[in-house]
Amino acid sequence: MSALIEKLNWRYATKKMDPSKVVPEDKVERIVEAARLAPTSSGLQPFEVIVVTNPDVRARIQEIAWNQAQVTEGSHLLVFAAWDNYTADRINDMFDLVNEERGFTNEGWENYRQMLLNSYPARDEQVNFEHAARQAYIGFGMSVAAAAFEGVDATPMEGFDPAKLDEILGLREKGLRSVTILPLGYRADDGDWLVNLKKVRRPKDQFVSLVA
Amino acid sequence: MSALIEKLNWRYATKKMDPSKVVPEDKVERIVEAARLAPTSSGLQPFEVIVVTNPDVRARIQEIAWNQAQVTEGSHLLVFAAWDNYTADRINDMFDLVNEERGFTNEGWENYRQMLLNSYPARDEQVNFEHAARQAYIGFGMSVAAAAFEGVDATPMEGFDPAKLDEILGLREKGLRSVTILPLGYRADDGDWLVNLKKVRRPKDQFVSLVA
Repeated sequence: MSALIEKLNWRYATKKMDPSKVVPEDKVERIVEAARLAPTSSGLQPFEVIVVTNPDVRARIQEIAWNQAQVTEGSHLLVFAAWDNYTADRINDMFDLVNEERGFTNEGWENYRQMLLNSYPARDEQVNFEHAARQAYIGFGMSVAAAAFEGVDATPMEGFDPAKLDEILGLREKGLRSVTILPLGYRADDGDWLVNLKKVRRPKDQFVSLVA
Repeated sequence: MSALIEKLNWRYATKKMDPSKVVPEDKVERIVEAARLAPTSSGLQPFEVIVVTNPDVRARIQEIAWNQAQVTEGSHLLVFAAWDNYTADRINDMFDLVNEERGFTNEGWENYRQMLLNSYPARDEQVNFEHAARQAYIGFGMSVAAAAFEGVDATPMEGFDPAKLDEILGLREKGLRSVTILPLGYRADDGDWLVNLKKVRRPKDQFVSLVA
């Protein structure tokens, strides 16, 4: 077992967090950094992470998240929000950044830019959002892994009203739509019904198959 | 920087793999295990991983994956395939497994099962598949992180014809639809145009924001 797999076995969807414990900022930064480093389709990184610490804002979010207490019991709430659409500006910004950072332009790369410009912006907005949302889930998975690696408890959540969360955080004005949230904190000493229950996953022979 | 973040900076979408190098089985197992341990909505784990090593099958997959050579140059190809739908059987199987593994039943848990049984199977099949696909992307992200942690090169790919891949692997008969693929291997000593180029990500201030 590697150190990472050991931590992935340690983690669980924490049901009760200790409100007196605060996740250190350097750990939060690395958990967000894992998402920033996530691979995404064509490298467009079509999502952002909003870190909410404000108690009042988190109390409002808890109300539209089935009242799940970890939203406020944790010290930080990460909100993963995907681009609402792929626009020419967004595509160009990313290709321009790559050229700037690498210090040169390349014909193949520019042809690839044109191919995306000719296809993505013309597609249905919802199709583009769904594609962007999937990329956000890659980053979400990597942040979950990073939180475990840091020994930080986290509760991956889809159970909230995205439209209302978008409103609370003003996300639509920024061209973003929330897809998942991740409270960060530390498990409470008692009162968590899940902490001592066995982690259940389908056995390997029902999850993985081999074509040899 | 943590050991994990260091590895996430090390990784890149490998463009040319050395066909003479084989990823050891214990590393492949841990990379798949990271996906098996991924958190998923209601714990349903609505996806599977197919590990393809057969050279002929991989050659056929390369043809429907924009001829990307890593599919055959790597030693293993992971295929992430999501459930085509949420059915009552699939939901019951998972809830039954949890009861069996934990050795007891619980009223709240059984009520939750009923809520899912009353909502998921009646929804549009495509809506359910899209939801399952997002969960597969969480596992995909965790496998990408695990591969990096193991020092194994990998190329996350959406660029293939899912319908044709489903046909090659007979996935639809199993109620599965491919969503992403991940060749595993080791970067070639030369010939990879990307390996020496700077990894580019949006700067932190354009990726993360704080609501304090």
